[in-house]
Amino acid sequence: MAMNALALAPGPILRRDDRDGVTTLTLDDPASRNALSEAMLAALSATFAALAADRSVRAVVLTAVGPCFSSGHNLKEMTARRVDPDRGRAYFTDILGRCSAMMQQIVALPQPVIAAVQGLATAAGCQLVATCDLAVASTAARFCTPGVNIGLFCSTPMVALSRNVAPKHAMEMLLLGDMIPAEEALRMGLVNRVVPAGEELEAAQALAARIAAKSTLTVKIGKRAFYDQMGLRLSDAYDHASAVMVENMLARDAEEGIGATLAKRQPRWEDR
Amino acid sequence: MAMNALALAPGPILRRDDRDGVTTLTLDDPASRNALSEAMLAALSATFAALAADRSVRAVVLTAVGPCFSSGHNLKEMTARRVDPDRGRAYFTDILGRCSAMMQQIVALPQPVIAAVQGLATAAGCQLVATCDLAVASTAARFCTPGVNIGLFCSTPMVALSRNVAPKHAMEMLLLGDMIPAEEALRMGLVNRVVPAGEELEAAQALAARIAAKSTLTVKIGKRAFYDQMGLRLSDAYDHASAVMVENMLARDAEEGIGATLAKRQPRWEDR
Amino acid sequence: MAMNALALAPGPILRRDDRDGVTTLTLDDPASRNALSEAMLAALSATFAALAADRSVRAVVLTAVGPCFSSGHNLKEMTARRVDPDRGRAYFTDILGRCSAMMQQIVALPQPVIAAVQGLATAAGCQLVATCDLAVASTAARFCTPGVNIGLFCSTPMVALSRNVAPKHAMEMLLLGDMIPAEEALRMGLVNRVVPAGEELEAAQALAARIAAKSTLTVKIGKRAFYDQMGLRLSDAYDHASAVMVENMLARDAEEGIGATLAKRQPRWEDR
Repeated sequence: MAMNALALAPGPILRRDDRDGVTTLTLDDPASRNALSEAMLAALSATFAALAADRSVRAVVLTAVGPCFSSGHNLKEMTARRVDPDRGRAYFTDILGRCSAMMQQIVALPQPVIAAVQGLATAAGCQLVATCDLAVASTAARFCTPGVNIGLFCSTPMVALSRNVAPKHAMEMLLLGDMIPAEEALRMGLVNRVVPAGEELEAAQALAARIAAKSTLTVKIGKRAFYDQMGLRLSDAYDHASAVMVENMLARDAEEGIGATLAKRQPRWEDR
Repeated sequence: MAMNALALAPGPILRRDDRDGVTTLTLDDPASRNALSEAMLAALSATFAALAADRSVRAVVLTAVGPCFSSGHNLKEMTARRVDPDRGRAYFTDILGRCSAMMQQIVALPQPVIAAVQGLATAAGCQLVATCDLAVASTAARFCTPGVNIGLFCSTPMVALSRNVAPKHAMEMLLLGDMIPAEEALRMGLVNRVVPAGEELEAAQALAARIAAKSTLTVKIGKRAFYDQMGLRLSDAYDHASAVMVENMLARDAEEGIGATLAKRQPRWEDR
Repeated sequence: MAMNALALAPGPILRRDDRDGVTTLTLDDPASRNALSEAMLAALSATFAALAADRSVRAVVLTAVGPCFSSGHNLKEMTARRVDPDRGRAYFTDILGRCSAMMQQIVALPQPVIAAVQGLATAAGCQLVATCDLAVASTAARFCTPGVNIGLFCSTPMVALSRNVAPKHAMEMLLLGDMIPAEEALRMGLVNRVVPAGEELEAAQALAARIAAKSTLTVKIGKRAFYDQMGLRLSDAYDHASAVMVENMLARDAEEGIGATLAKRQPRWEDR
């Protein structure tokens, strides 16, 4: 149990700060450009698992320290495994599986996750931004999927990227590997807001605070339904969303929220 | 028969005006902010059923009276059913099913439907705009999915919204519930045009008139094919669209239209 | 063999120019507005088949001569077959099948294809631009799916168009048949760049040269993975992309490219 708790505790490379229902996670390994190393992936994965079960957390902000938001996979760590008997195949399979699972933890997390991108987000770092539900970028932020330049195409980052921006925009980033300025990322739909450098964390936390003031159950129902209905045919999507909305309507927070609206008073949510 | 005809006739809360092949439908219940009440859903549903069978109608404009385009579901009507023995479950299931069916009638309608959004379109009202094939917005129009603020996430509106705009834009509207100005809706792809306030109906009717001047059969074939191929894999989509296009090519209007083009004369469509 | 080689050789209506790993294909039949005639489809199809097997080609540019990029199907050729005993059904089925197959050859081609659009791209000509991986447009370029005006809806062009731009933008082009200026096509995401008229070929070739300087194997793996994962559910897409990335990681070019990056030297790709 103690060991398990330790294993689940985020290491110092990932800091967690909880305030008023908003958890801010900070990638704090600038020496590695906040690479998604084994240790960082483990810390993120354990933290998201803990957050998923933590009813006191109502929104999450994900930010980073240093000029880089995240540089993606740790190439040194991966390269070191080329001497394995299988040339690293088992290790690469494992680490890519862990990374993809962590990304999908964000999608499955009941709380919305808002990226506060202060610097360069490359490869799986760019994927991380694309995967978050919302994203605020500093004017200093840059976005890049440069794997094509080093012989390793950004195929897993592409999964998140191509679900966020138009195909020709995604292809351009993936085939050229150029750095995309924040303003262009905004036009593409990769981020929601661009703010002056140094204000991105505050801006993301302000959005998180607004979400945290809403009914937690409702936000959770809605986020899940969003991703569940996404790939369905229209009639299936409507069947699913209608069923979700009936359950939502019967929940205590909808009764309270609608009642408060009709009575022109402030609602009081179940967990507050 | 007489009762059936009466039931199908749009009530005074939904006005229908037919002119030169263009039908303008006007939500005219400003006291309820043009809510999609039982009565309004029934009127819309009956009207779309009638239009689907009406070969004299070649395009449809959907607009509204008052400061609100539509406020979505009627919360008072829904809340009143919380006293039902099942706390309203059967009623909510029924009304959401009716609303989703009405939205899908628009998609299935042979004629294109153009929203002329003069004011605020919220929740299922915003879904209505997203569902129309085209949309013209006044500079006074606003768009909003505010269910999250009252404990009832806009899960069914999300189905149409998330199929029209980028995921991060949809999520932002759904999680924050903010009012989106017309110009931002234009950038997102939620509407096709923004025109000065007061000109939106005329602008939508002008688009409708242009569509009404084209071959009705061709427009019908094309609209159906658009939605049918949308979710298919690329090769399946091509197989489907190719088969559709062969039938279209063999139809009288294509022979006339192509013949007229090659002969540099105006085509005469079958139903004119 | 000799006959086969002749059959595969592009006719004079399609010129092929190879330089430093970049193949430029030029539609050169301005008299027909570069229509996708039987002969042009055959030339394109044979050329893409040859390119797919040509390891010396690392990127492809597709451009055209005259005021029109391509006007799509050859209406005279198609109309001539209305006198067939089946009114042309077999012929139309065949020619649409050939055209859809040619479009899918571009998607399946290992090399990226970049459209350099110097003029008007209409109907299947617009589809050709939408189908290319990237597109550079001249300020003189225009885009149009005008089939609705001649009784033959642009149903196959719609397949590519609706996978590139927002639904309301696609519907507007398809239902109205208007000419879209290059700048609007850029905002919609239909093209990647707009450059001054006369510079589009050079700009497209510059992008192609940059792609040609990268690892051919890596680009090929990435392009294929992009289209393979596109329609999959998120978890399936991640499974697929992760498996692709493991194989990519084990390939010689990734070892070389990552090694070069870590050693801060230029990589040398396998085929160079």
